[in-house]
Amino acid sequence: MTDLQNDRLLRALAREPVDRAPVWLMRQAGRYLPEYRRVREQAGSFMNLCRNADMACEVTLQPLERFPLDAAILFSDILTIPEAMDLGLYFEPGEGPKFQKTVRTEADVRDLPVPDADTDLDYVVNAVSTIRSALGGRVPLIGFAGSPWTLATYMVEGGSSRDFRQLKTMIYATPERAHELLDKLARAVTDYLNAQIRAGAQVVQIFDTWGGALSDAAYREFSLRYLERIVAGLIREHEGRHVPVILFTKNGGLWLNDIAASGCDAVGLDWTMNMGEGRRQVGGRVALQGNMDPAVLHAPAEVIRAEVQRIRRDYGDHPGHVFNLGHGVTPEVDPDSVAVFVDEVCRGGD
Amino acid sequence: MTDLQNDRLLRALAREPVDRAPVWLMRQAGRYLPEYRRVREQAGSFMNLCRNADMACEVTLQPLERFPLDAAILFSDILTIPEAMDLGLYFEPGEGPKFQKTVRTEADVRDLPVPDADTDLDYVVNAVSTIRSALGGRVPLIGFAGSPWTLATYMVEGGSSRDFRQLKTMIYATPERAHELLDKLARAVTDYLNAQIRAGAQVVQIFDTWGGALSDAAYREFSLRYLERIVAGLIREHEGRHVPVILFTKNGGLWLNDIAASGCDAVGLDWTMNMGEGRRQVGGRVALQGNMDPAVLHAPAEVIRAEVQRIRRDYGDHPGHVFNLGHGVTPEVDPDSVAVFVDEVCRGGD
Repeated sequence: MTDLQNDRLLRALAREPVDRAPVWLMRQAGRYLPEYRRVREQAGSFMNLCRNADMACEVTLQPLERFPLDAAILFSDILTIPEAMDLGLYFEPGEGPKFQKTVRTEADVRDLPVPDADTDLDYVVNAVSTIRSALGGRVPLIGFAGSPWTLATYMVEGGSSRDFRQLKTMIYATPERAHELLDKLARAVTDYLNAQIRAGAQVVQIFDTWGGALSDAAYREFSLRYLERIVAGLIREHEGRHVPVILFTKNGGLWLNDIAASGCDAVGLDWTMNMGEGRRQVGGRVALQGNMDPAVLHAPAEVIRAEVQRIRRDYGDHPGHVFNLGHGVTPEVDPDSVAVFVDEVCRGGD
Repeated sequence: MTDLQNDRLLRALAREPVDRAPVWLMRQAGRYLPEYRRVREQAGSFMNLCRNADMACEVTLQPLERFPLDAAILFSDILTIPEAMDLGLYFEPGEGPKFQKTVRTEADVRDLPVPDADTDLDYVVNAVSTIRSALGGRVPLIGFAGSPWTLATYMVEGGSSRDFRQLKTMIYATPERAHELLDKLARAVTDYLNAQIRAGAQVVQIFDTWGGALSDAAYREFSLRYLERIVAGLIREHEGRHVPVILFTKNGGLWLNDIAASGCDAVGLDWTMNMGEGRRQVGGRVALQGNMDPAVLHAPAEVIRAEVQRIRRDYGDHPGHVFNLGHGVTPEVDPDSVAVFVDEVCRGGD
């Protein structure tokens, strides 16, 4: 068992008492930081940055130099898995990620290889060990992956989408084909997260960014079922410690009870759900993570502080709150506003 | 009091027993219909089509010729109000609506005129009377408007947006400015819907398409508050009949109870909320409208039928269900699939 100087996140995820809620931010290493943009420019491309363990480590640690955060999160992308499936990931400036090949026909799905994390995604595994070692036990390291449903949206649509028409047509018209694809993705994600855990990730989070686009019934069948399968297949004990799993379905507030019953340790909430209402629904069964609207970071300092206080008050005096935004920090945010957010969480109180 | 040959919609909205749930579709007159595309081409532009009462009437009636629908909905656009505020509405092919002027500064908001519906929006009022008279009491006519919050997103951002950064910055940094804008819009929407009611609209719906992008607390303060104000200001009795109001906040399922308490007659639900769960929450206080995912219209007929049956089963054997999609019909949908959807609703039963 390794030493960990700050285990506030692990204790909050276990619903144990803490002096104050731990805090980290989705996309805490990213374009809003000038020091990130410098490294990103050196790297030449986003994927080069992900592929270089030293650079990925450098940008992972950058926000920890600025802010008293309680966790580091691996710098990488959810699309590393489809990229390892040879779909030809590329980035069109101003348009987000795209794939040269789409996955739509029965043959497309059947022929899709399931990558082996230790070989096909070794650059991520190496980045995890490098970061873990550079952290020296300061704070825990969070590994992550995209959910099968969310990865499938990019693979089937060929990039970002507003209505997910191709993938939704697949789930309704040929559900067995959709299940075959999601099953392959669930196996790939499980293997990938387990490789990250073995390499030193002490917590893992699964990002189900687009699960909230599904109907109630389809969410259960095409997203939650695979999240449950992944949770059941993960290494849950490593280096003598429990490895907590956080599930984050954006716009998934209506399904909180079911997500909480998936076997995960914590559920991430976006800002549409009141934290007090969420806490009443889950009781102490899981921890809750979130949930300030990142747009509040464009407001004056006193408004940011008031919003942090409101969320803390709503959650109430219970263990099991991990402070975060309800989605990633956006590129236009001023780092000083992030500093105010983190500072207000660290003040604790109420 | 005028005769109405089919008052199924009005009875369902009043939570009175009906032989089967009434059905209409958001955007039932639109690009998926070849006969619509012909008129749209003749008109030369989308706004020309809205401005010509005869053409607007023609396209409003088109879906009723094809499908046994229980309501007509005025063909128009939610952006007629900002257009009447002289912001210079235009459409960029493939990019959606845009405005030449944005509304951001204190002076922008202060100088914004509140249009008078009977003069500045007389073309909509004329279209309503023309359609009402052409319907000859076949089915009721639904009038509509966008919600203040949703209209404000387009006006402040200058068009569609993914994160509503400008307007969210306004609500958090200068809330009094946002309230002044929303108050003007609420007055304009109230006046506009009342003019539609006087011209013959028998039901009105308010589309809060982007309310679901707000945090729980901000939704109440910046969207729901203005919806309540509008509902309180509407003509609720006309031609000897109650004029029901339907509120539709896309992604607003978490706030169903509060929306139901706004004074409206019905709440529209998108497909993320289970209809049975929604019904349990509201009891018989309001009717519920929805909620099939329009993407199901890309599936084979038997899948569409099964989905209609599932939604009917979920809602259960209670009065007060208005069948609809959870959002508008998309342009790529085959009209034959809409025919299957409507037919299955009309079959009734479980």
